[in-house]
Amino acid sequence: AGSGARGRKMEGYGRFLALLGSALLVGFVSVVFSLVWVFHYREGLSWDGGPREFNWHPVLIVTGFVFIQGIAIIVYRLPWTWKCSKLLMKFIHAGLNTIAMILAIVSLVAVFDFHNARNIPNMYSLHSWIGLTAVIFYSLQLFLGFAVFLLPFAPVPLRAALLPIHVYSGLTIFATVIATALMGITEKLIFSLKNPAYSTLPPEATFVNCLGILLVIFGALILWMASRSHWKRPPEVNAKILQPIGVTPEGTEAESTMTDGSNGDNKSDLRINSEAARKQNLKFDEAGQRSTM
Amino acid sequence: AGSGARGRKMEGYGRFLALLGSALLVGFVSVVFSLVWVFHYREGLSWDGGPREFNWHPVLIVTGFVFIQGIAIIVYRLPWTWKCSKLLMKFIHAGLNTIAMILAIVSLVAVFDFHNARNIPNMYSLHSWIGLTAVIFYSLQLFLGFAVFLLPFAPVPLRAALLPIHVYSGLTIFATVIATALMGITEKLIFSLKNPAYSTLPPEATFVNCLGILLVIFGALILWMASRSHWKRPPEVNAKILQPIGVTPEGTEAESTMTDGSNGDNKSDLRINSEAARKQNLKFDEAGQRSTM
Repeated sequence: AGSGARGRKMEGYGRFLALLGSALLVGFVSVVFSLVWVFHYREGLSWDGGPREFNWHPVLIVTGFVFIQGIAIIVYRLPWTWKCSKLLMKFIHAGLNTIAMILAIVSLVAVFDFHNARNIPNMYSLHSWIGLTAVIFYSLQLFLGFAVFLLPFAPVPLRAALLPIHVYSGLTIFATVIATALMGITEKLIFSLKNPAYSTLPPEATFVNCLGILLVIFGALILWMASRSHWKRPPEVNAKILQPIGVTPEGTEAESTMTDGSNGDNKSDLRINSEAARKQNLKFDEAGQRSTM
Repeated sequence: AGSGARGRKMEGYGRFLALLGSALLVGFVSVVFSLVWVFHYREGLSWDGGPREFNWHPVLIVTGFVFIQGIAIIVYRLPWTWKCSKLLMKFIHAGLNTIAMILAIVSLVAVFDFHNARNIPNMYSLHSWIGLTAVIFYSLQLFLGFAVFLLPFAPVPLRAALLPIHVYSGLTIFATVIATALMGITEKLIFSLKNPAYSTLPPEATFVNCLGILLVIFGALILWMASRSHWKRPPEVNAKILQPIGVTPEGTEAESTMTDGSNGDNKSDLRINSEAARKQNLKFDEAGQRSTM
């Protein structure tokens, strides 16, 4: 595995590193802000049906559903992983997303538990409607991604057809999760700041507004990194996949070319075996390009 | 003008039309929902410092900052405009965005006016912080877009370098505006629904939650259409621009190739004059590709 990977130098490597460093910093500071919010301004954390149980909700959402999901999105772009096999990177991508989903689900349990203990109604707010929809789509995305791109059963044209949808859905869900977090912050500050009220902008309000701004900046950095096609992992060069149509390429090694399109400047590097292979390759290549959100 | 445009058939034209129809429908229904909200559930519209003045805020934001901005984003993709000159399409793009900005600014004036008449503090909420930032970035984007891409003074390499940033900023601002609208809906429903409260989900709450869902669907449709590279306006084929570097191409006609990248399958259509021209063309082409969010 990984025999086909090239140690190609990344274009604009310094800029990529600066953006990655900024994203990691902003994401990490967001997690710290969520902890300071619940420990310094609120009641802290515990699992007792009270406000301290609710407090797991913002902490786990910021940590898992925003920060870890964001890192999962750009994990293929880290140039020092380009010599690792694509399969390994898929496991890391799927693993990080699984962790994010588990944390998101635990954070939902915390809210429902808190609401039920206090007889507060569930699922009335726009925040809850869009948030639950996002969790359901996220689970679906994870399940479909696992079935189609990780398990070796899906035929190559299906993978090529679903990849752009997978990429688009992933980025759209990520943006929706951040929007939902902003609604959650709005709700929580209105409900919990009464005397002094949110409208008088006490220190907690300013602090948590800043957390909201950090989440937007984190999202914008991840979306920029994820949408630069010249920062994509280069396609695996593997003679097997350059066979004419009809010769079935083997499982996970083979699909790399379809699931990771190349830029124009990579094309010349591919070893062309035959005219039919060239056409097949261009077709997959194009499918990959479309996935570049 | 427009002499270089080709009447190329769009790939997946039926699917594009279906998505465009859905986006127009969802956008239009959102505007209707905002009107039903303020006329049926609230006090209606007027400019009197009272709640009816505030009501201009959601109506103008949904109409201008969401619906019209969304249409402005995808206006280049309409295949029946591909025979129009690129310059004309830029005027339409800039014009729609200018209308959206004016409506957004009027909607801000309505809120500030209402707050000041009622002694409600301004600019304390996360909604107001992110919303005002979005309006400022949107104005900057419009000014820079006008100066760089519409006026004929900016050199071609500057246009090529700024286009991917312009596209990314535009889509990010659009997504941020929708997120801000969702926060605004959350705030307004909490503040205005007291007896019965938002948490009991009265008809107005259900109705306006649905408006929020419609805004998310509208945003998702626009972002899908805007990020399919095979639905981009084909590059102008114009012999003048295929001159070697050093021969200055003329104004707006010339820049089409830089501001509108082509897919791999368009490349073969371009008439190549010389090796230097080919390289220059590929370079701009690549710059265009990167802009495909």
